[in-house]
Amino acid sequence: MVFYTHDNLSGNNVTAFSVAGLNGSSSSAGKFGTVVVMSDDVTKRPKINESDADNTVGRAQGIFVNTNLVTGLDTLLVFTVIFHDMEYGGSTLEIQGTDRFAYPHREVAVVGGTGKFRFARGYAILTTELLSGTDSVIKFNTTLRTA
Amino acid sequence: MVFYTHDNLSGNNVTAFSVAGLNGSSSSAGKFGTVVVMSDDVTKRPKINESDADNTVGRAQGIFVNTNLVTGLDTLLVFTVIFHDMEYGGSTLEIQGTDRFAYPHREVAVVGGTGKFRFARGYAILTTELLSGTDSVIKFNTTLRTA
Amino acid sequence: MVFYTHDNLSGNNVTAFSVAGLNGSSSSAGKFGTVVVMSDDVTKRPKINESDADNTVGRAQGIFVNTNLVTGLDTLLVFTVIFHDMEYGGSTLEIQGTDRFAYPHREVAVVGGTGKFRFARGYAILTTELLSGTDSVIKFNTTLRTA
Repeated sequence: MVFYTHDNLSGNNVTAFSVAGLNGSSSSAGKFGTVVVMSDDVTKRPKINESDADNTVGRAQGIFVNTNLVTGLDTLLVFTVIFHDMEYGGSTLEIQGTDRFAYPHREVAVVGGTGKFRFARGYAILTTELLSGTDSVIKFNTTLRTA
Repeated sequence: MVFYTHDNLSGNNVTAFSVAGLNGSSSSAGKFGTVVVMSDDVTKRPKINESDADNTVGRAQGIFVNTNLVTGLDTLLVFTVIFHDMEYGGSTLEIQGTDRFAYPHREVAVVGGTGKFRFARGYAILTTELLSGTDSVIKFNTTLRTA
Repeated sequence: MVFYTHDNLSGNNVTAFSVAGLNGSSSSAGKFGTVVVMSDDVTKRPKINESDADNTVGRAQGIFVNTNLVTGLDTLLVFTVIFHDMEYGGSTLEIQGTDRFAYPHREVAVVGGTGKFRFARGYAILTTELLSGTDSVIKFNTTLRTA
């Protein structure tokens, strides 16, 4: 299964906010120690386009934490993908892993799921689809086992 | 397996404290972005009754984070259930998932376990047994596989 | 598989920093509610010795949270072990569990993995190899299934 998360740290439609860090809630997401709470749109196709009505399939809700002391380019991800669309509505995937932003391909774990994804475990290959200022679109290409 | 968590955000026996959020450690648990650290009693039966000596079987220790930008009614749960009772003493379950408080039934994942629950994975159906001010009792009806 | 994490809360080579807690980012790691972000060295052998060139095999990057209201001796661990060495380079293990520091042996869960550890689940037995002021070396003796 492939999906895209749309993370916006600034602008008109902010979806991710710093809440703690070495400088408190004004800490930058790009610096070691910063904890960000997010509720990102999840889509089937990489672009958000309001006329593409069935593109948005859920939200990625949870936290990410900057854990790289030197470069600030690693973030621990702990979040739930909550699907809203017809096919998987109400089902979730649970993600834990480190997004190593310096690498073109990186990998996080699927540590569980609910609904149609009960007993799921697996992994997701992450690639950066778009990076524009503090906005990013990340592609998650997931492989799951539920047996 | 069924158990109940007893979460008290205020009063004489507080078990859950805000530590970060959009307004720092004074952030409300009901608002997006707030991070709460908890150590809730876990019981076999829904009511805490001091004369019911074998009712308390452990503690639910970890964090919850408000992740709903609009309603404030979703919380990411990441915690360990540490069992203290005779049957499962010293064993734990590891929980990750989103408690969608707006729904009568919601589901989180069991992503691991220790002791008698080594290799566990599964899910828990959550229902609100009691909601009184900022105190709540949540029923966890869990289904596990350990093979 | 056995590895050692080297956690330094103070001194010349700090690897773990408080970012939130009941007293904000100045909260002590030993007090309930404190959230610490870490990037600890991971080694094959217990001592860090600069002439032992192949000893360091990765980093443990993530958070720990003090969850014991009474003693301050339990910490929820949520982190990724990122291996850098030849054998497992680029692979990771995902850990969730509670390190109950008051006990000589304690156990946390392996909730997932990536690379050579895809689909991993299991557990780790933790023992304190060294405790010197605010520095600690913890031994992780892990048992994994990936099938």
